[in-house]
Amino acid sequence: MGEDALIAAFAEIYRSRTGVLVGIGDDGAVVESTSALQVVSTDMATEGIHFNRAWSSAVDVGAKIAIANLADIYAMGGMPKFLIVAISAPADEEVNYLLDLARGIESVAREFNVSVVGGDLVAGGSLAISITAFGAVERPVLRSGAKVGDKVFLTRGVGKSLAGLLLLSKGLATPDSPDVRVFQRPDFNPQDLIEFGLDKAHALMDVSDGLLSDLPKIAQASGVGINLTFGESELSNLTPLSEKVGISALELFLRSGEEHSFIVVVGAERHSALPKQWIMLGEVVAGSELTYHGKELSLQSKSWHW
Amino acid sequence: MGEDALIAAFAEIYRSRTGVLVGIGDDGAVVESTSALQVVSTDMATEGIHFNRAWSSAVDVGAKIAIANLADIYAMGGMPKFLIVAISAPADEEVNYLLDLARGIESVAREFNVSVVGGDLVAGGSLAISITAFGAVERPVLRSGAKVGDKVFLTRGVGKSLAGLLLLSKGLATPDSPDVRVFQRPDFNPQDLIEFGLDKAHALMDVSDGLLSDLPKIAQASGVGINLTFGESELSNLTPLSEKVGISALELFLRSGEEHSFIVVVGAERHSALPKQWIMLGEVVAGSELTYHGKELSLQSKSWHW
Repeated sequence: MGEDALIAAFAEIYRSRTGVLVGIGDDGAVVESTSALQVVSTDMATEGIHFNRAWSSAVDVGAKIAIANLADIYAMGGMPKFLIVAISAPADEEVNYLLDLARGIESVAREFNVSVVGGDLVAGGSLAISITAFGAVERPVLRSGAKVGDKVFLTRGVGKSLAGLLLLSKGLATPDSPDVRVFQRPDFNPQDLIEFGLDKAHALMDVSDGLLSDLPKIAQASGVGINLTFGESELSNLTPLSEKVGISALELFLRSGEEHSFIVVVGAERHSALPKQWIMLGEVVAGSELTYHGKELSLQSKSWHW
Repeated sequence: MGEDALIAAFAEIYRSRTGVLVGIGDDGAVVESTSALQVVSTDMATEGIHFNRAWSSAVDVGAKIAIANLADIYAMGGMPKFLIVAISAPADEEVNYLLDLARGIESVAREFNVSVVGGDLVAGGSLAISITAFGAVERPVLRSGAKVGDKVFLTRGVGKSLAGLLLLSKGLATPDSPDVRVFQRPDFNPQDLIEFGLDKAHALMDVSDGLLSDLPKIAQASGVGINLTFGESELSNLTPLSEKVGISALELFLRSGEEHSFIVVVGAERHSALPKQWIMLGEVVAGSELTYHGKELSLQSKSWHW
């Protein structure tokens, strides 16, 4: 299949939704601006580092990268509208693999009512996928707005992505195991955040690298500390996975990334109007440290390398 | 240098210009929308395919990719405003090489008054650089608007980029030769197109892959043919390079890509008000063929592989 035929095949997969005047096929795409401010973000993923084709289907790889990009837009208090996809692949890459990547991206675009409006496909030494998302925002919510006395919530529990990765990398599960599903394709759902109000948080961020890495970014940007106060009961659903991988549920919870749950820092005036399923992680305190029940976090290992 | 330090170094290199509310450092960037319509485009370049570090400095590589992206925005009749940069690089890549890529991108951003507002830097098997550009557009100019009777112009001559590539790949010139400068960094200048009026053309496109590849895209999108009528005199400046590489000036002119000169298809009513330095390539005719003085183009070779 030549380049033109492949681009035509991509154009067949990607559907234009609202606001697309010119889609794939010209020098650029033309889209409507629906707000005075726009939010933009980009995420790149490479084979062997961010995904492994033995562990995830191409559809799941594409979906997961698209989700990471959409999450960044919501995490700024915005609503995603459009995606642009650039892919480099070895010249002998299977066409079906590339089309399945596109199908995965499109499946997410469809679910969240965004349009893939353009892209680039080039030859390269290894497979790399770069997606840029942009969306509309009325009042951006930054990482820097957390204030002492605010509470820190998580829109849904995390831990399963890291557990899945560890099960696969240790050979303790196969790619068809339900235990690795969240690793392959995050169970991403911003709906309760949207209903709460994208601009109602003092600070907002999605969990990309794990709470242990992401919470200090809010603390640093806001010039505050965060004291985690959640109890063991919040981790009970991780216990079976924790036993399988031989790592504590607390550590899975704090280190698991790529699930794109949202960290929502909320002022006292809104504590009574939160979605019931949100997990209260802790509170914003003076200082600059991340603590757990007032003490330094003590975990089995500094970090992992895979 | 860790990832955080490297991102801080990038943030030092990239300067925010007009319209940037939130730049590098949060989940996404926030920018002002200055028009009801926006144009977006992406271009990716990979080492060994699009650039060779023995032949071009990292500053030039970064600049060239940025120029390719800006050209796509102008080629839609838009004015570029913002860039997003995603880079994958082997874990042992020299930090200075990555910083020089950024310096090259920023040098172009500064020249055209656009801002690099965000990016991603990830590990990967090989070096790949993906830039997404977006800008404001009032009236998009597509490839599909050429009409029989229109004239086809080129905003400046092309040919030197391919000549430089051939000189380098054949070992006939070294990277410090002036003969390869346009290959390393295109002499890009949209100013006369802007002064003519970005929305005054019937069809508009930048020369990315060479006239022989790009003109048929306009013909196909517009459902017309194009008869080239330019004379040998338009190619005289290519004669010395043509002799050095052993390929006709006509072939250099028609096959050279990546110079980002603009193909401007203009209605008869505007033929008298064009910048003097524009080259009249030919005319839009009925049919679907690209011809040269009414005959099929006959060139030495079908294509090259490098």
